[in-house]
Amino acid sequence: MDNEDQESLLLQGVPDNYGGVKVNLTEPMTIEDFVPKLRASLVYWSNQGTKGIWLKLADGLDNLIAPAKAEGFVCHHAEREYTMLTSWIADVPSTLPANASHRIGVGAFVLNKKTKEVLVVQEIDGHFKGTGVWKLPTGVVKEGENIWEGALREVEEETGIKTKFVEVLAFRESHQAFLEIKTDIFFLCELEPTTFEIKKQDSEILAAKWMPIEEYVNQPWNQKKELFRFMANLCLKRLQEMEYMGFSKVLTTTSSGKESYLYCNTDHANLLNATRGLASTSG
Amino acid sequence: MDNEDQESLLLQGVPDNYGGVKVNLTEPMTIEDFVPKLRASLVYWSNQGTKGIWLKLADGLDNLIAPAKAEGFVCHHAEREYTMLTSWIADVPSTLPANASHRIGVGAFVLNKKTKEVLVVQEIDGHFKGTGVWKLPTGVVKEGENIWEGALREVEEETGIKTKFVEVLAFRESHQAFLEIKTDIFFLCELEPTTFEIKKQDSEILAAKWMPIEEYVNQPWNQKKELFRFMANLCLKRLQEMEYMGFSKVLTTTSSGKESYLYCNTDHANLLNATRGLASTSG
Repeated sequence: MDNEDQESLLLQGVPDNYGGVKVNLTEPMTIEDFVPKLRASLVYWSNQGTKGIWLKLADGLDNLIAPAKAEGFVCHHAEREYTMLTSWIADVPSTLPANASHRIGVGAFVLNKKTKEVLVVQEIDGHFKGTGVWKLPTGVVKEGENIWEGALREVEEETGIKTKFVEVLAFRESHQAFLEIKTDIFFLCELEPTTFEIKKQDSEILAAKWMPIEEYVNQPWNQKKELFRFMANLCLKRLQEMEYMGFSKVLTTTSSGKESYLYCNTDHANLLNATRGLASTSG
Repeated sequence: MDNEDQESLLLQGVPDNYGGVKVNLTEPMTIEDFVPKLRASLVYWSNQGTKGIWLKLADGLDNLIAPAKAEGFVCHHAEREYTMLTSWIADVPSTLPANASHRIGVGAFVLNKKTKEVLVVQEIDGHFKGTGVWKLPTGVVKEGENIWEGALREVEEETGIKTKFVEVLAFRESHQAFLEIKTDIFFLCELEPTTFEIKKQDSEILAAKWMPIEEYVNQPWNQKKELFRFMANLCLKRLQEMEYMGFSKVLTTTSSGKESYLYCNTDHANLLNATRGLASTSG
């Protein structure tokens, strides 16, 4: 049997970072064609010392999921466009990364320092429906979006107000918060408004307005619920004393050269930003 | 046709929080049995004004994925134990929550204040393999685990050192960091050691030791890579001046009564903790 014949009997994979291979199937295939190829490939990979197999089945190849599981694969995760199965065939514990476990929520404390008013909304649906509670604009960070960008986007979408990011004031974690098992980390961000005329979003927002900060903080809901009282208290402290110090952002790069934001103590962030500025202008 | 007959022709669902229903199938079913029931149910739900359908298929019911997609369902997410499909049948934009988009990484700055030494490791595999770089212990927070707990666990697993959580010093976001599309948020945490004798983990850790902090910071890798230089610099600032202020943790509850941690400016966190202490002892 020559190489070409052998290749036609095997699934083609590329190396991954965990001593394994990734197989990406996108063309329709019958079970009768798939199963012998998968079995032969598993023997081949095992002989090669391959540790783990990723099997990515495009939407439309769902007929191959059950047969792959019958050969020892398990579902790792799935998106609208594909299902990812894995099989760890090495004799050592699996080092494959787990599925995504969190989503990132943002809340925006948009403070008009001149009037000491804060931007608040009432939502049409959701947790606060019908309560009359005025809340900070909130939302979920999109896949691939930075936290500070998500906060700016949500405020502009909901209220039409344009803002600049100031800092992260605090964050909290809430487990089993969505999809039954996943965790929500919520970042409370201070933003500085650069426009003041409200144009509310009609589909999600019942009402939006600028509200005196004491009135916002003193709402019974914020006083009764500890987490809300803490956060409201923190916003008030920020306004009253300007001593509260959050995490500002510094643009940097990861070791592989990708753009990345570091969030740290505001004084330190300003120092790092100044250092970056010097570095880029002195070159 | 009486109610019992009608029920046997429909899939049974329970209301969700988005004006829809959740169907949870766990018993094996043939395609021939499933498709007429799904079609009849979709007509029934549509007449009821149901907005969206969640269809959870347990592992083993993979034969029903393709037929469900043929009726308009798409894959929302999947875990080892199930595949979740959804169909949004209302005439308004979908309000279903997106799939999980992030994972949470932790790095531990474990500082022995008496000796001014920091706990460092070399890993057997991974990004730093063969570089000789001494790095902070790092790891991934498990599903349902708190950030501060993940940091403590990773340090003890890798080095045997027991610690107390002090504060979050900084965090950074890195997109397309794993599973091709997902984001990694990495929290740099300061921990205080309560034991000092190192017992390293043999499967992942090549070497572990206490290293003078200047020696750690001055490694060429930390100086050349901006993100690492920033973080090392920040650890040094923390030791030298003790002025750097991070986010400490306060135990609180969400509005639904679940335990939840709020991370905020250390001074404020201490104040909140004191307030909680008073509240619980004065009752």
